[in-house]
Amino acid sequence: MPLPAHMTVGQGQLAIDSGFTVALEGYTEPRLERARDRFFGTLTRETGIPFNVTPQTHPATLVIRTGAASDPVQQLGEDESYHLEVTAKGAQLTAPNPLGILHGLQTFLQLVTVTPKGFVVPAVTIDDKPRFPWRGLMIDSGRHFQPIPVIERNLDGMEAVKMNVFHWHLSEDQGFRIESKTFPLLQEKGSNGLYYTQQQVKDILGYARDRGIRVVPEFDMPCHTTSWFVGYPDLASAPGPFQISDRWGVFDGAMDPTRESTYEFLDKFIGEMTALFPDAYFHVGGDECNGKEWSSSSRIQAWMKAHGVKNNAALQSLFTARVQKIVAAHHKIAEGWDEVLQPDTPRDVVIQSWRGPAGLAAAAKQGNRVLLSNGYYIDLNQPASYHYLTDPLGGDAATLTPEQKALVLGGEATMWSEFTTPEIIDSRIWPRTAAIAERLWSPQDVRDVDSMYARLAVVSDKLVFYGLTHQSYSWPMLQRMSGESDPHALAVLASVVQPPEGYEREDLKEYNTSSPLNHLVDAAHPESDTAREFGNLASLIATGKATPEQWQQARAWLTLWRDNDAKLELTLTNSDLTEELMPLSKNLSQASTIGLQALDDLENHHAADASTVQANLQFLKTAEKPVAVLISKVFPAVEVLVQASGSAH
Amino acid sequence: MPLPAHMTVGQGQLAIDSGFTVALEGYTEPRLERARDRFFGTLTRETGIPFNVTPQTHPATLVIRTGAASDPVQQLGEDESYHLEVTAKGAQLTAPNPLGILHGLQTFLQLVTVTPKGFVVPAVTIDDKPRFPWRGLMIDSGRHFQPIPVIERNLDGMEAVKMNVFHWHLSEDQGFRIESKTFPLLQEKGSNGLYYTQQQVKDILGYARDRGIRVVPEFDMPCHTTSWFVGYPDLASAPGPFQISDRWGVFDGAMDPTRESTYEFLDKFIGEMTALFPDAYFHVGGDECNGKEWSSSSRIQAWMKAHGVKNNAALQSLFTARVQKIVAAHHKIAEGWDEVLQPDTPRDVVIQSWRGPAGLAAAAKQGNRVLLSNGYYIDLNQPASYHYLTDPLGGDAATLTPEQKALVLGGEATMWSEFTTPEIIDSRIWPRTAAIAERLWSPQDVRDVDSMYARLAVVSDKLVFYGLTHQSYSWPMLQRMSGESDPHALAVLASVVQPPEGYEREDLKEYNTSSPLNHLVDAAHPESDTAREFGNLASLIATGKATPEQWQQARAWLTLWRDNDAKLELTLTNSDLTEELMPLSKNLSQASTIGLQALDDLENHHAADASTVQANLQFLKTAEKPVAVLISKVFPAVEVLVQASGSAH
Repeated sequence: MPLPAHMTVGQGQLAIDSGFTVALEGYTEPRLERARDRFFGTLTRETGIPFNVTPQTHPATLVIRTGAASDPVQQLGEDESYHLEVTAKGAQLTAPNPLGILHGLQTFLQLVTVTPKGFVVPAVTIDDKPRFPWRGLMIDSGRHFQPIPVIERNLDGMEAVKMNVFHWHLSEDQGFRIESKTFPLLQEKGSNGLYYTQQQVKDILGYARDRGIRVVPEFDMPCHTTSWFVGYPDLASAPGPFQISDRWGVFDGAMDPTRESTYEFLDKFIGEMTALFPDAYFHVGGDECNGKEWSSSSRIQAWMKAHGVKNNAALQSLFTARVQKIVAAHHKIAEGWDEVLQPDTPRDVVIQSWRGPAGLAAAAKQGNRVLLSNGYYIDLNQPASYHYLTDPLGGDAATLTPEQKALVLGGEATMWSEFTTPEIIDSRIWPRTAAIAERLWSPQDVRDVDSMYARLAVVSDKLVFYGLTHQSYSWPMLQRMSGESDPHALAVLASVVQPPEGYEREDLKEYNTSSPLNHLVDAAHPESDTAREFGNLASLIATGKATPEQWQQARAWLTLWRDNDAKLELTLTNSDLTEELMPLSKNLSQASTIGLQALDDLENHHAADASTVQANLQFLKTAEKPVAVLISKVFPAVEVLVQASGSAH
Repeated sequence: MPLPAHMTVGQGQLAIDSGFTVALEGYTEPRLERARDRFFGTLTRETGIPFNVTPQTHPATLVIRTGAASDPVQQLGEDESYHLEVTAKGAQLTAPNPLGILHGLQTFLQLVTVTPKGFVVPAVTIDDKPRFPWRGLMIDSGRHFQPIPVIERNLDGMEAVKMNVFHWHLSEDQGFRIESKTFPLLQEKGSNGLYYTQQQVKDILGYARDRGIRVVPEFDMPCHTTSWFVGYPDLASAPGPFQISDRWGVFDGAMDPTRESTYEFLDKFIGEMTALFPDAYFHVGGDECNGKEWSSSSRIQAWMKAHGVKNNAALQSLFTARVQKIVAAHHKIAEGWDEVLQPDTPRDVVIQSWRGPAGLAAAAKQGNRVLLSNGYYIDLNQPASYHYLTDPLGGDAATLTPEQKALVLGGEATMWSEFTTPEIIDSRIWPRTAAIAERLWSPQDVRDVDSMYARLAVVSDKLVFYGLTHQSYSWPMLQRMSGESDPHALAVLASVVQPPEGYEREDLKEYNTSSPLNHLVDAAHPESDTAREFGNLASLIATGKATPEQWQQARAWLTLWRDNDAKLELTLTNSDLTEELMPLSKNLSQASTIGLQALDDLENHHAADASTVQANLQFLKTAEKPVAVLISKVFPAVEVLVQASGSAH
C-alpha cells in the first residue's frame, strides 16, 4: 500500500534470511547509503533477523541500480518511478534517480511476509510511478506543539507509504513554533517555550530529503496570527497588548494590511524563512479571516475608503497580493488556503482546497494549480473508507477539461492539533493516512474498500516497525485511567467506541489549550475496527448472507460486550477519568443483550414482537447519542439486527 | 519502590491538576532546572495533564529546597538523602545537595495515583537515604551492541528506582564498542561498525550525571579480548590473524602478559579512557581466563620459567598487578571481577563478586571493598523474588565483622547480552531490576515478597511512562511471528511461558551472534506473572485456603488455556517461527484439562483415582521439560492440584 501502478506476480519466492545482502550500483551518493542502512534497520525490525550491514558489491541478494542524481532541491514533479523485479534467486531495483529507489525499497519492505519456510518476498515484477506529484501530510505544530521525535517518526511513516510533501504548519493563535533570528520575540513571547530551533529545522529538512520528502513551511496570515502580536503588537489591526490564545476556535485577530510597516516586517521575516527552507513553495495560509478587527478600526476603515477598498474580502485580497509579491521576490511560489483565490490571483499561486470540492474545481478553472484537502481532514475522525473514496478528480473536478485536470497536483492529509498531543498524534494520522496515500499514488480505478481495509490492517502492523506509536499509545493511557486496576475490561470498551466525527466534540464539552487529553475519547482510535467489522457482520446476518463462522463471531462479540459491564463497573468508579463511562458501558451491555436476542430470533425464524422491537430500537437510538464525548457504531449495527429480527420468518 | 527508610502517612491528599507548580529554592544549578523540566515531562506522561512549565517562584505546589552543590564528579558515598513532606496544601522537598533532590522527585512521581477526585499524592512525610552507596546496573554492549537510545532510556529507569552506578561493559570477544582515537583499529576492525563515538559517550556521561548516576566503564582484560586483537594482533598471546568472535562462550584468546609492549599499549589506552570517563573507578574485568594460550605458547612458558611464575593464575595475577598500577598512575581506582582477588591485591581495588557468595566474603575478609553481583544476574531469567531475597550482607557475608561488612559497597544487576537485542533488552532488565534496586536502597528487613510483587507491578506500569519498552516490546514480536494472523491466541500462550533459567538455553539450541532472537522465547517475559499467580492459586486451593474468587480465577485461566490450542493451531502452522510451539500449546491444553478435572474432584471432595493421578503426574513431569526453548510454570502448579486431588476427601 499504495498499490503499484503495474504489478505481475511471478513463481516462487525470495528467502529473507541472515544471508540477505544489498549492493548499490550505478550512480550513488551518501543519501542512498543511508537509505540502504535504514532499509536494513527496518528489515531487522520486521523480521528480527540481524543482517550483515557492511557494504556489499555485486553479487548481492538485492541489487540497486540508480541512473543519476536527483535535483539538489527536490522538485515538484520529479521522476519518482522505479522498477522492482523479485525472483526466487534475487531482486533488482532500478530507478532513474534516488527518489524511485527510496520508493522501491519501501515496496520491498511491504512485500516481506512470514511463511512456514521463514520470511520471504514473493516473486513479482513491478513498474511503478505516482498518479499525482504532490502527496502531502500537514502537521499543525501550532496548537499543540509536536516535538522533533514526533515529526521524525511521522516522516518515517510518510516514507513508508510514499508521501512526498511534509507541510509544516508553524504558527497559530496558540503558538509561534519556530525560531526567528530576525524577530526573536516571535518565539520568545509567542510561545510557551516550545518551538523548533533553526538547527532542529535544518536537521528535519535533511531527514525529510533523505526520505524523498519536500518540506513546505506554512506561516498562516493575516489571521490565525495572535501569537505574532504578543512580541510585535504593531503588526495587529487592533491595539495591544496581546496574549497567546488559550482557547480553540476562530479569533478576530488579524494583521493590519494598511500599514507599510507590516509588509516591511513580512519581507524581512519571509526573507529569513525562505533562506532556511529550500523548497520552491512557501505557504502563507490565508484562511478564516472574519474581518471583525478591520471593521471595528476607524483607522483601517478610513484607509479603505481613501484607497477605494470596498470590503474586507477585498482588503484581504490586497494583503494577499502584497505577500505573494514578497514571496515571489524571494524566489518562491506562494501557496494558500482557498480563501486566497481571487479573480486576480497570479496563475502560479497554488491553492489548497479545504472548504469543499467546489473550491478545487474553481481554482483549476481559473488556471491555478490546486491541491485537495477537503475530505482528507484526518483530525475529524472520519473512516478510512471516506478518505479513500475522496478523489482529487472526483466530485466537481470530474467535469474539468483535461488541461484543467492537469492543474490538480494531488492532495494533503491535514492533522490539525486541537485534540492531539504528542502521545496521541500517531493514532490520529495512522493508519488512515495510508489510505489517502494510496488514493494519491495508485491508479484512479483502485477503489475497492474491502481490499483497502484488509491491506490497511497489514500496513498498520508494518508501521509499528517504523517506530510509530499508533497502536501502542492506547494501553498506557488505559492503565493511567485505571490506576492500579486491571485495564483489560476498559480495553474491551475502548475497542468499540470512537470520538464523534466532524466538529461535534467541541460542542459536547469545552476544551482549551490546557485541557488534559487523557480520557477514553483520547485513548480510543478515531475509527473502531471492531465496531466496523461488527457492522459488516450485522449486515450480512440481516440479509441472510452470513456464514456460520460469522454468526459465531457476532455472538462471541455480543456476549463479551454484554458481560463486560459487570467486570468494569468497580474499576470505573475508582477514577475520575472513568466514572463518566458508566452509562456508556451499561448501554453497551444492554444493547448486546438486545443483539443476542435478535440473533436468537433470526436463527429460530421467530419474528420478534413488534412492540419489543420498537422499544429496543428506541433504546438504541438513545444509546447512539454521545456519552463522555464518545460514540459507538455498535449501536446502529445492533439496530440492523433488531430491524431484521422484526421481519424474521 | 524502593521503599523509603522512614515514612509516615498523613491525612488527606494533594491534588495534582493543571494548576500544579514547582519552585526551586536555595542552591540551584542548571541540572536542577533540567530535573524539574524532566519531572514535569514524566508527570505529564503519568497523568496526561499539561502543566505550566514556565519557571515559578514561591509560592508553588511543590517547593524544592537544595542545600548546596554536590561534588563536581559524583563520588561514591556522597550524601543522597532527602526529606519529602506532602500535605493536602502542598509539598516540600529538601536535600543537602542535588542528588537527594533527584531521588525525592522520583519518590514524588511514584506516589501519584488516580482517584475519583482526580490525580493525587497522599499526604506523607518521608526521610530517606540509601542503605548501600553503590547500586548499579551493568549493560553489556559488547556481545549485542546497544544503541544510545537504549542506554538513555535505561538510565531513565535507573533514575526512577534510585540506582546510581551505570557499569558500561564496552569490550568483548564479539565487539569493541567505543571509539579510541589513540588506537582507532580497536573499533574499526574490532567491531562490525557498531560502536559509540567519544562524543556519544560524553553525552551519556552528562545524561547520567543529570540523573545522579556515575558511569564506570569496563574494559575486560586480559581475556574476553578477541576484538582487540583484530586490529592489534601483537597484544595477543597466540599468533594472529584474528577475527571478531561470532559465537558465544569462553574463548582461549588472552593478552600477552609477558611483553612490555602490552603494558605500553594499555598505558596509552587507559590514559585515553580515564581522561574520557571522569569517575574515580575504572573496571578492568579479569574474568574467565582459561590460560590455554599461555600454556600452549613455548615463548610464554619460557618467560614464566625465567621469571619464576609458577602457573597461569600467577601469570594473570602479575598482569593484573601491572594493570592496576597503570590505572592508579592515571589517578583511578581499579575494579575487577572476583578472579582478580589475590593475596597481594592492593587494598583499594574494588572486587565485583559474580561467582558465588563466598567470593564476596573472602574479599571483605581480605580488606578489599566489594560489590555483589552473584544473585543479580538478570540475564538468567530468574524470578524477581530470588534477586530480591539475595542480600549483599546475607549468606556468607552475614558472619562478617562490622568492619568487614562496611567494606560491602552494595551490588550490581548485570545484563549480559547473548540473548538481548535492543528490541528485547528492556524486558530483561525491567521490572525485575527494581526489586534489586529496593534490596540495595531500603532497610535490610524490608523483605516481604508479596508486597514486593504487588508494588513491582505498579512500578512496572510507571516505568512505561519513562519510555521503557519492557511491556510494549512483546506484541509487535507476536505480530511478526504470526504474519497476517491475529496474534491474540499466541499472546495467551506467551503469557504463561518463559525462557529456562540459568545457562540452560545454550544447551537446548545452538546460538551465535547472527542468530535471530525472534522466537517466542525472546518475546516472552523472563518471569511469567500469570504462571506465578496461578501457582499461588494452586497452592491456596491445594491447602484449602482459597477464596471463591480465587477458585473462579483458577477455573477461568484453565478454561482459557484448555481452549486456546484449538484457536492457535492454524496460526502456528503459518510461520516457521511458530511451528515449533505446537507441542507446547497442546501440552498446555491437556494440562489444563487435567487441572480442571482436579478442581472438580477437589470441589466435590472426590478423591481422584490413583492410577489416573499417576498418569497425569507423569504427563505433567514430561510437559515440564523445555519445548521450543521454553518452559511453563503452569505445569508444576497443575501438579500441585493433581497431588491434592489424589488425597481429596
